[in-house]
Amino acid sequence: MSRIVAFETTDIRFPTSLSLDGSDAMNPDPDYSAAYLRIVTDAPAPSSLGASAASDGLSGHAFVFTIGRGNDVQVAALDALAGHLVGRELEPLLDDMGATNRELIGDSQLRWLGPEKGVMHMAIGAVVNALWDIKAKRAGLPLWQLLSRLTSEEIVDLVDFRYLGNALTREEALHILRAAEPGRAQRETELLATGYPAYTTSPGWLGYSDEKLARLCREAIADGFGQIKLKVGADLQDDIRRLRIAREVCGDGFPIAIDANQRWEVPEAIAWVNALAEFEPAWIEEPTSPDDVLGHAEIARGVAPVRVATGEHAQNRVIFKQLLQAGAISVMQIDAVRVGGVNENIANLLLAAKFGVPVCPHAGGVGLCEAVQHLSMFDFVAVAGTREGRMIEYVDHLHEHFVVPTDVRGGAYHAPLAPGAGMEMKPESRAQYEYGTTDAAA
Amino acid sequence: MSRIVAFETTDIRFPTSLSLDGSDAMNPDPDYSAAYLRIVTDAPAPSSLGASAASDGLSGHAFVFTIGRGNDVQVAALDALAGHLVGRELEPLLDDMGATNRELIGDSQLRWLGPEKGVMHMAIGAVVNALWDIKAKRAGLPLWQLLSRLTSEEIVDLVDFRYLGNALTREEALHILRAAEPGRAQRETELLATGYPAYTTSPGWLGYSDEKLARLCREAIADGFGQIKLKVGADLQDDIRRLRIAREVCGDGFPIAIDANQRWEVPEAIAWVNALAEFEPAWIEEPTSPDDVLGHAEIARGVAPVRVATGEHAQNRVIFKQLLQAGAISVMQIDAVRVGGVNENIANLLLAAKFGVPVCPHAGGVGLCEAVQHLSMFDFVAVAGTREGRMIEYVDHLHEHFVVPTDVRGGAYHAPLAPGAGMEMKPESRAQYEYGTTDAAA
Repeated sequence: MSRIVAFETTDIRFPTSLSLDGSDAMNPDPDYSAAYLRIVTDAPAPSSLGASAASDGLSGHAFVFTIGRGNDVQVAALDALAGHLVGRELEPLLDDMGATNRELIGDSQLRWLGPEKGVMHMAIGAVVNALWDIKAKRAGLPLWQLLSRLTSEEIVDLVDFRYLGNALTREEALHILRAAEPGRAQRETELLATGYPAYTTSPGWLGYSDEKLARLCREAIADGFGQIKLKVGADLQDDIRRLRIAREVCGDGFPIAIDANQRWEVPEAIAWVNALAEFEPAWIEEPTSPDDVLGHAEIARGVAPVRVATGEHAQNRVIFKQLLQAGAISVMQIDAVRVGGVNENIANLLLAAKFGVPVCPHAGGVGLCEAVQHLSMFDFVAVAGTREGRMIEYVDHLHEHFVVPTDVRGGAYHAPLAPGAGMEMKPESRAQYEYGTTDAAA
Repeated sequence: MSRIVAFETTDIRFPTSLSLDGSDAMNPDPDYSAAYLRIVTDAPAPSSLGASAASDGLSGHAFVFTIGRGNDVQVAALDALAGHLVGRELEPLLDDMGATNRELIGDSQLRWLGPEKGVMHMAIGAVVNALWDIKAKRAGLPLWQLLSRLTSEEIVDLVDFRYLGNALTREEALHILRAAEPGRAQRETELLATGYPAYTTSPGWLGYSDEKLARLCREAIADGFGQIKLKVGADLQDDIRRLRIAREVCGDGFPIAIDANQRWEVPEAIAWVNALAEFEPAWIEEPTSPDDVLGHAEIARGVAPVRVATGEHAQNRVIFKQLLQAGAISVMQIDAVRVGGVNENIANLLLAAKFGVPVCPHAGGVGLCEAVQHLSMFDFVAVAGTREGRMIEYVDHLHEHFVVPTDVRGGAYHAPLAPGAGMEMKPESRAQYEYGTTDAAA
């Protein structure tokens, strides 16, 4: 038996607002930050982690991504969960991750702060993800592969089906997973050979000049990306000019998605997107409030055939369920750290499969690419069973801070092979950007 | 000019779990708590506050209600807002409370933590409410009266119409308010004479014996309450037995509402409520996840003519908008501290008026009765223009800790006349129940 001996949290902030990387219509000056969690056990590091991990023992790493102020609040929410973990025996927690997840979600006093939304829910997600990191390291497998080798029954046991009863039952989920079983081995081989498709948002930030936009579009195509994405929503004439530039550089038929980052009212979204329709956007992302299921459905009807995408701010599986039930989205964008961790994202993948909607995860920020690729790769191997019409967002930023940085080449995420969930940040980066102690953003 | 000189927060917890007061199907052992905020100015206390307030100067008091663990996280969220307030001139903040509200909601870095939901949003609500407390104290009026004497234009200036564009425009809101203008003075007189109807939840907690249930039903009727409410959802046979007892004691036709506190799946809710239909419940409250707009609409269709009520956990105006658009609720239950404060609750009242749905606020906990009565009284005088079919929840618990406790007699909330927003807790109570320093709940 091993035991959890420490629950360490760190407030990490990168001063990204100084360069306007990541600027959009709603977030003009983000300082990409991580409320960072390290769950420490008394077990030795498995030899598969290599010599550099010896000093870390067997530890689980995860984080909640924020954009600066308030990262301390997120750290406080993590700290509120320490009492559920410290001193506990490790094996019972890891052996039934479904029960572990339900225990955390089910703390009735903490639940009042959401329920299942916002700071407290994201903190639960980080704990769940850190435990998966430990479980994957102990198994000597990357998370995507660990999940892909579970039986269908083991996978559905991870899911909290509460509040999904009118959309996805345990039996339906089992049916979806069993249908994907026969091809798992072959798809794993394909994934290892060719990776998972990526698209890039790097050209499209609002803070960039037209020249930089055009140059980055050319580079994206040269780098092999199959889609780019542009931020829109601050000024219609600017959007028209920038989309025209991008369309000219990329050529007819090349997928160009647009992203309004929740900027619009429902009628405004419909009018604005229709004014951009001549540029044939691949999708319109986050046209309005992420809480507005009915609004997204109204927009979807009003802008067809342009597809609506959302999800990076969808607070939990109940919102995804409704977006799918209402026909509000044609592309579902999960985020690795917004909801209650790996377990809830498996529920989200199963919902998408049930409704036949492709999942194209949100990424970027700091570490989101490293984290979410595991979920898409699992989706390909064991849930959806296809990469068709699917791709993971990619932004080439801050990867150098991670122990296992993404390997994106030729427009594809190449599958990580190192054991773990991929969210572990290098100790020297954690130390350098710890807030209040260094040159991190004020 | 006055200035905000301090932003004091306190973690206050009452050990209510020891008595099982407040136990329901989802919250078996709440410790009623308050993440308490005091905004201190350098202005003297107005003489209308009386001698006891002299040492407090002109301060604004508000809180977020929680049920125990996590109250420290809520305090951290309050503290994250101090930088927006401390050192600021008071008058510009109070003179344009619409702009002040939008500034707080609009902090793009903090917004990422929600947006507009959970711990961070409730913290913003507490700041807004504390500023309203200052404004009302300075005006020498109770909040309900201060709001009721604003012009219709001043009221709509308080509202953030963002994301309401497809349901309620500024012009429609103005139209609703102007229609209610002629009767304002008369309704204020009526309110002062007869108060606002109350119903009581005291008989219905799950932890009580059948004998206590019957006794408390008799007492509720003797006390003049026009409705009682019973918690349900843990066990159907228990619910049938308890509803039968309540119906026998209260008699045919007496309104008995039932409250499942989010316990059910959608199909389960429909079956369970229909199994209780013979007892003619006045409404079914919180049948499922508070995030599930479409689920509530499905339940509403499945249990008619029993009415569906929800809202105490509705995170913001966007959820209320959709509940109304979908025909999911026949009774709307605002909460004084769940959303972004007085301003967002004015948006919620206007939405309810637009859709013709009565508002029957959630209260209880600690201080929720004291706070929310101001909103219903304002609703009667200046928005809905009627008390018909409306009542405020009442639980006779913990009122003694407030400077201006509720005055509930004859089944009615009698209008508070003391200046302020009603959320100020006595200094000795704050000191006694400060967490970690006293005998408050562990």
